[in-house]
Amino acid sequence: MTATFRRAEERAADALRPVRITRHYTRYAEGAVLIEFGNTKVLCTASVEERVPPHKKGSGEGWVTAEYGMLPRATHTRGDREAARGKQSGRTQEIQRLIGRSLRCVFDLAALGERTIHLDCDVIQADGGTRTAAITGAYVAAHDAVSWLLAQSKISRSPIKDAVAAISVGIVEGTPLLDLEYTEDSACDTDMNVVMTGSGGFVELQGTAEGAAFSRAEMNALMDLADKGIRDLLAAQRQALGLA
Amino acid sequence: MTATFRRAEERAADALRPVRITRHYTRYAEGAVLIEFGNTKVLCTASVEERVPPHKKGSGEGWVTAEYGMLPRATHTRGDREAARGKQSGRTQEIQRLIGRSLRCVFDLAALGERTIHLDCDVIQADGGTRTAAITGAYVAAHDAVSWLLAQSKISRSPIKDAVAAISVGIVEGTPLLDLEYTEDSACDTDMNVVMTGSGGFVELQGTAEGAAFSRAEMNALMDLADKGIRDLLAAQRQALGLA
Amino acid sequence: MTATFRRAEERAADALRPVRITRHYTRYAEGAVLIEFGNTKVLCTASVEERVPPHKKGSGEGWVTAEYGMLPRATHTRGDREAARGKQSGRTQEIQRLIGRSLRCVFDLAALGERTIHLDCDVIQADGGTRTAAITGAYVAAHDAVSWLLAQSKISRSPIKDAVAAISVGIVEGTPLLDLEYTEDSACDTDMNVVMTGSGGFVELQGTAEGAAFSRAEMNALMDLADKGIRDLLAAQRQALGLA
Amino acid sequence: MTATFRRAEERAADALRPVRITRHYTRYAEGAVLIEFGNTKVLCTASVEERVPPHKKGSGEGWVTAEYGMLPRATHTRGDREAARGKQSGRTQEIQRLIGRSLRCVFDLAALGERTIHLDCDVIQADGGTRTAAITGAYVAAHDAVSWLLAQSKISRSPIKDAVAAISVGIVEGTPLLDLEYTEDSACDTDMNVVMTGSGGFVELQGTAEGAAFSRAEMNALMDLADKGIRDLLAAQRQALGLA
Amino acid sequence: MTATFRRAEERAADALRPVRITRHYTRYAEGAVLIEFGNTKVLCTASVEERVPPHKKGSGEGWVTAEYGMLPRATHTRGDREAARGKQSGRTQEIQRLIGRSLRCVFDLAALGERTIHLDCDVIQADGGTRTAAITGAYVAAHDAVSWLLAQSKISRSPIKDAVAAISVGIVEGTPLLDLEYTEDSACDTDMNVVMTGSGGFVELQGTAEGAAFSRAEMNALMDLADKGIRDLLAAQRQALGLA
Amino acid sequence: MTATFRRAEERAADALRPVRITRHYTRYAEGAVLIEFGNTKVLCTASVEERVPPHKKGSGEGWVTAEYGMLPRATHTRGDREAARGKQSGRTQEIQRLIGRSLRCVFDLAALGERTIHLDCDVIQADGGTRTAAITGAYVAAHDAVSWLLAQSKISRSPIKDAVAAISVGIVEGTPLLDLEYTEDSACDTDMNVVMTGSGGFVELQGTAEGAAFSRAEMNALMDLADKGIRDLLAAQRQALGLA
Repeated sequence: MTATFRRAEERAADALRPVRITRHYTRYAEGAVLIEFGNTKVLCTASVEERVPPHKKGSGEGWVTAEYGMLPRATHTRGDREAARGKQSGRTQEIQRLIGRSLRCVFDLAALGERTIHLDCDVIQADGGTRTAAITGAYVAAHDAVSWLLAQSKISRSPIKDAVAAISVGIVEGTPLLDLEYTEDSACDTDMNVVMTGSGGFVELQGTAEGAAFSRAEMNALMDLADKGIRDLLAAQRQALGLA
Repeated sequence: MTATFRRAEERAADALRPVRITRHYTRYAEGAVLIEFGNTKVLCTASVEERVPPHKKGSGEGWVTAEYGMLPRATHTRGDREAARGKQSGRTQEIQRLIGRSLRCVFDLAALGERTIHLDCDVIQADGGTRTAAITGAYVAAHDAVSWLLAQSKISRSPIKDAVAAISVGIVEGTPLLDLEYTEDSACDTDMNVVMTGSGGFVELQGTAEGAAFSRAEMNALMDLADKGIRDLLAAQRQALGLA
Repeated sequence: MTATFRRAEERAADALRPVRITRHYTRYAEGAVLIEFGNTKVLCTASVEERVPPHKKGSGEGWVTAEYGMLPRATHTRGDREAARGKQSGRTQEIQRLIGRSLRCVFDLAALGERTIHLDCDVIQADGGTRTAAITGAYVAAHDAVSWLLAQSKISRSPIKDAVAAISVGIVEGTPLLDLEYTEDSACDTDMNVVMTGSGGFVELQGTAEGAAFSRAEMNALMDLADKGIRDLLAAQRQALGLA
Repeated sequence: MTATFRRAEERAADALRPVRITRHYTRYAEGAVLIEFGNTKVLCTASVEERVPPHKKGSGEGWVTAEYGMLPRATHTRGDREAARGKQSGRTQEIQRLIGRSLRCVFDLAALGERTIHLDCDVIQADGGTRTAAITGAYVAAHDAVSWLLAQSKISRSPIKDAVAAISVGIVEGTPLLDLEYTEDSACDTDMNVVMTGSGGFVELQGTAEGAAFSRAEMNALMDLADKGIRDLLAAQRQALGLA
Repeated sequence: MTATFRRAEERAADALRPVRITRHYTRYAEGAVLIEFGNTKVLCTASVEERVPPHKKGSGEGWVTAEYGMLPRATHTRGDREAARGKQSGRTQEIQRLIGRSLRCVFDLAALGERTIHLDCDVIQADGGTRTAAITGAYVAAHDAVSWLLAQSKISRSPIKDAVAAISVGIVEGTPLLDLEYTEDSACDTDMNVVMTGSGGFVELQGTAEGAAFSRAEMNALMDLADKGIRDLLAAQRQALGLA
Repeated sequence: MTATFRRAEERAADALRPVRITRHYTRYAEGAVLIEFGNTKVLCTASVEERVPPHKKGSGEGWVTAEYGMLPRATHTRGDREAARGKQSGRTQEIQRLIGRSLRCVFDLAALGERTIHLDCDVIQADGGTRTAAITGAYVAAHDAVSWLLAQSKISRSPIKDAVAAISVGIVEGTPLLDLEYTEDSACDTDMNVVMTGSGGFVELQGTAEGAAFSRAEMNALMDLADKGIRDLLAAQRQALGLA
C-alpha cells in the first residue's frame, strides 16, 4: 500500500497531530484537563459526586459516566445549541455512551465505593477526532479526580486498573492515515475509532465504511496505525501526569 | 483456543440459530419481512415515499433511512414504551443510525431518484441480536420495495449495488461464539457486531469489551466466525428472495 | 331500513369479519395474544408487575392499565413513529384510556392484590376496528396473565368478574353495519364503538356523527347490531380460552 | 325507577343547574362567552384566523378547532399547570377533540371559506360538566364570530347549519340524574355526555360505566333526561343570542 | 420636561388607570382575586399546600412561588397556548420568577412553616402591565390565604412582613408616563417595571431601553412616577382588604 | 456610607476584578473572545449567518441574537447539563434574552442587512458576574464579526452605533460594592446588573432585593459605582480592539 495522499503541514500518514494536555485548566473540578489534538480542543472535567444512580444503590460499587457536548461555534459553521433545541442528537448520545463505556472498562467500581465520577467532555474547537480526544483527556481528568479522592482519604487505593486512550484512523484516497483531521474525515472512505488500554487490549472498535466497504487487509493496516498512535497517546498521558 | 462454553440446544460455537425469513408478512408496505434468528423476531417494513429530507432536496438523489423500536414486552421483563416516555433512548438511536448507514452503503442513491425508502425495524420478540437481524431483514424488505418500484416503472434499474447482512459474535467464558442469544450476550466479555456486503467487504464493525479488554488474536477469531455467519445469512437472503 | 351498501367479500351487514385469536403468540409475556378481525391484527400482551402506581400504594388494591401503539407501516400509508416524534397523539391517548377503563370494569382490583397488569396493544396491521380488536384481545391476554398468577399461587382466586369485548358499528350510505373495515369507516356517517360485558351490560359507548347527526332510531339499530357482534366475540374468546 | 338520591339545593333529578350565558365577556375576541352551569364557569372565546391548517390548504374549505384548559385552581385542590409540566394530559386532549368535532358537525366548512375559527375553552371554576358547558358556550361564541364575519363582509351567508349543545347525565345510587355536579360525578356508577343539535340529532354520545355495567333500559332513561336538558340549553342559547 | 403625549381618555401622565380589586372571585382557592388595571384583568389565586419543594424540606421554612399564564385570546390577536406547544416561553418564565421573588421578599418564610403558597396569575384580558397587576393582585390573594391559615389555626401569627405592589412606567415620545397601556407600551422608548414595599423600599427594578438608551435624569423622573403610582396601589390593596 | 466589608485580595469597594479580553480565542467564528472578570471566564463567539428569523424576512433588516450556556462544572459544584435535561432553565433564558436586547440596542439593524449575528456566550468558569462579562465580551466579538463583514465587502459601513458593556453592583453587609464575585453575590442584600452604552446611557437596569428592600439612596450609590465600572470596561474593550 503506497501512501499517496498529501496531508496538511507535511504530516506523515502514521503521525499524530501535536498533542497537548493541560491539567488544572479550570479551578473547581476535581479533574480539569484541556486536551488538544492539533486544532481540536476538548475540555474534560471530572466531578466527584457522593452518590450513585439508582441501579447501583446499595451495591457497594461506584459509577463512572460521561456527557459530551459541543459549543455551537466549535465547528466551521455554527450548529444548533442542543440545550435550546431541547434534546441531544443521536450522535451526541452515541459519543457520550462510548466515552462512558471506555472509562468504566479501566475502573474497579467496587474500589471506587458508592460514588460517581462525572466526566464532562465539552468541545471548544472541533477539527476531527473530538471523541478520541475526549476519551484520552477524560482519562487524565479521571486520574486527577482519583488522586483528589486519595488525598482526601475518601478511598485508600486507586480504583484505576489501567490507562485508556483512543484514536481515529481511516482510509483517504486509498491511503491509511492516523488521527484524521476534519478535511480528511470528510473525504475518507473508511473511518475507524479505536480505544485501547495501557496493556494493549481493545476496549472499543468502531469502523464504518463511508463509501465503499473495506477489506480485512485494510482493517489490519488501520489497526497497526491505531496501535502506534495509542502508544504515543499513552506516553503523553503519563508525561502529563508526571508518571513518565 | 478451546471452546468450552456449552450452548443451549447443543448449538456449535460457529453455528447460527435457525434463520427464518418471511416476506409479505403484512399487506400494505412495499416490503414487509419477518426475520427470525431463533427466538429473536423482527418485523422489517420498507415504505417508499416520493420525497426526500431537506438535505437531499434538488440533489437528484434519494435517501434510505431506518427507525428501530421494540414492543414493550418483546423482552423478558417489560420495558417502558418510548412513545409514552416521550423520547427514544440512546441505544435506540444508536441502532437505527447503524441500520440506516448499513443499508445506504449498498444503495446507489442517484439511481434511486428523489424518493425515500423508510425501513422500520420493530422487534416483536427479543432474544439477542436484534440489530443484526434488523439489518439482515431490512435488506430483504428494501429489495422487495425496489422490485415494486421497478414493477411500477418508477425506476428502470435497481439502485441496489450489493447485498448486506449482519451478525453478532462474542467471547463467553473464553469461547468465541457466533450469533449470541440473550443469555450469552449478558454473560459475554466481548461483544462485536459485524456488517458485511455480499462481496465480502466490511460495512460496520462495532466491538465492545464488556469486562476485560480483548486482544488482536481474539478479534481475529471473532471476525472469522462473523465471516462464516454472514455467508450463511447472505445465502438465506438469496433463497428467501428466490435468487438462489 | 333496507341494507343497500354492498360490503367486500359479500359480507352481510350484521356479520363480523373472520375473528382469529392466537394465544402464546410471543414467549415472554404472561399473556400474549394476536387477535385478528379480518385484516386488522393487534398483538395484545399482558405483563404482571409486582407494584402499583402511586395512587394505589398501600391501598391493598391492584391496577390494570393499557398502552396502545401502531407500527408506522401498519396502515396503507406510513405514519410517523410516535417515539421519534416525542409524543403520543391525542388519538392514541384516547384509545389507550378506553382500553384501560374497559378492562378495569371487569376486574376486582382488591382480589388482584397490589400488583399491576400492563396491557400493551400494538397494531401490526390496521384495517379498521383496531381499538375494538385491542379490547377483545386484551381480555384474553389478561385472562392468561391471571391464570399464570393463579398457577404461581400469587393469588388464590381470579379477580376477573366478567368477560369484556368490543365492536364497532356504523351507518354507511344509510345502512347500519357491524364491524367496519377501513374503507367503510372512512365513508361512514356515524361511527360507534361499543364495549360490553359477558352478562350483557354496557361498559363504554362512544358514538360520533362524522357527517350528519344521527337519530335515536338509528342508534337503536346500531346497538342491536353491536349486541349481536359482541355475543359472537364473547364466544370466540371462550373458545380460544378453552372455556366453550 | 324511583329517584331516591337527594340532590343539593333541592334540585330535581331532571333539572339543570342555573345556566348563565354572558356574551362579550372579554374585549378582543370575535366571540367571548362566559358560560355558567351552576358553579362551573367556562370562558369560551372564538378567534378568527385568516388561514387554515395544512390539510385544508387549497381546499376552499375552512376549519373549526378547539383547545381546552383549566386554570390550576379552578378545582377544589390545585392541579398542575399543563404549560409548566410541558404537556397536555390525555383527558385534556380527549375533551378538546370532542369540542372540535361537536362544533364542526354544525358548520358548513365550504361556506366558512379558507379561514379558521379557534375555540378556546378555559375553565375558570370547575364543579362538574366542564366539557358540556364548554361545547354549549363555544357554540354561542362561534355564532358571535360568524356574525362578525358577516358584518365585516368576509362571508355573505352564515356557515352555521344548526345549533349544538351538550349535557352530562348519570346514574347515582340507582337514580338517573341530569347535569351532574362534581360530588355527583364522583359518586356515579354511569356517566354519559350527550351532544345534540338543534334539530334533535345526536352528534356525540360518550357513556362510561364507572363501577357496574349499565343496561339498555338505564341508557334509555339517561337519554330521555339528556334530551330534555339539551332542549333547555338550546333555548338558553337562543335567548342569549337574542334569537328567542 | 414637558408632557406632550396625549393619552387615551384624557388620562394624566402621572395617573393610574382605574384599579379594581375583587376578592373571592372564585370559590375554591384560599385566596382568589381579580385585579383590573383598566382593561388589563388578571386572576390571582393563592393555594396553600402542606408541603415544600425539595430545597426547603426539613428546613422549618415554607415557600412562596408563582406561575403566570395568559389565556390564548387575552390579547388583541390570538397567541399560542403554551400547554399545547409543550413549553412556557422565556417571557412567561421571566415574569413568574419576578412575581415569586417579589412576594417572597415580604414573607417571613420561617413564620409560614413548612408549607407552600402557590400564586397562580392568569391573564384573562391583556392591555399592558399584566406583570405589575399580577404582583399587586397576588399580594391581596396571598393576604387572604394567610388569613385563612390564621383562621384555621395552622399558624399563630402572620408571616407577611410588609405589603408589596408593582407598576410600570415608561417614556413615550419623550414623555414619562405612569402605568402604560398596550399601545403606549408598544410605542415606548424606555420601559421600567418597579416593585416596591409598603414601607417604600425597592424590591425589583427592571428598566429596558427599547430604542435609545435612557439617561439618569430620565430614570429619576420615572422613579418619581412609580413611587406615586405604587402609593396609590398600596392604598387600593388596603381598601380591598378592609384595612384602610 | 462607610465601606466595612473586607473583599478578597484587598480589593477596593469600587474596583473591578482584573479584566482580560482575548480575541481570536478559537479559529472558526467570525468573532471569538474569551473575557475574564477575575475567575469568571466566558467564551463569546459571534457567528454570521446569511439569513434572518421569520419576523425579519423581507424587512431589509438584520437581527442580533444571543444564547447563553454554562459548562456543567464551570461552577463550584456540578450542575445539570441543560441539553441532557432537555430544556434551558428560566435563568438561562432570562440571561440570553438580556444579552440579546443589550446588543441589539447598539446595532443599526437596517445597516446590518438581512443577516443574523448569533452571539454564543458559554461560561467556562463561573465566579459571579457571568451575564455582565458575557455582554461585555459579546460586544467585542460582535465588533470583530462586523470587521469581518466589512473586510468581505458584505457591508459598506458598520452597523454598530455605540459600544455597550455591563457590570454588577450590590450591597453586602451594608457596603455598596462593584463587580461582585460569587461569595459576595451569595451574601448580598441587593444585586443590580447595569448595562450602559459608550455614550453613558442606560440600556438595561435590573435590581433585585435578595433580603431587605433597598432605598433610593442605596440605588443611587450603586449606580455611581456601576457608572465608574462601566467606564473602565469600555476602556478595556477599546484597548482590546486596538481603538484606544
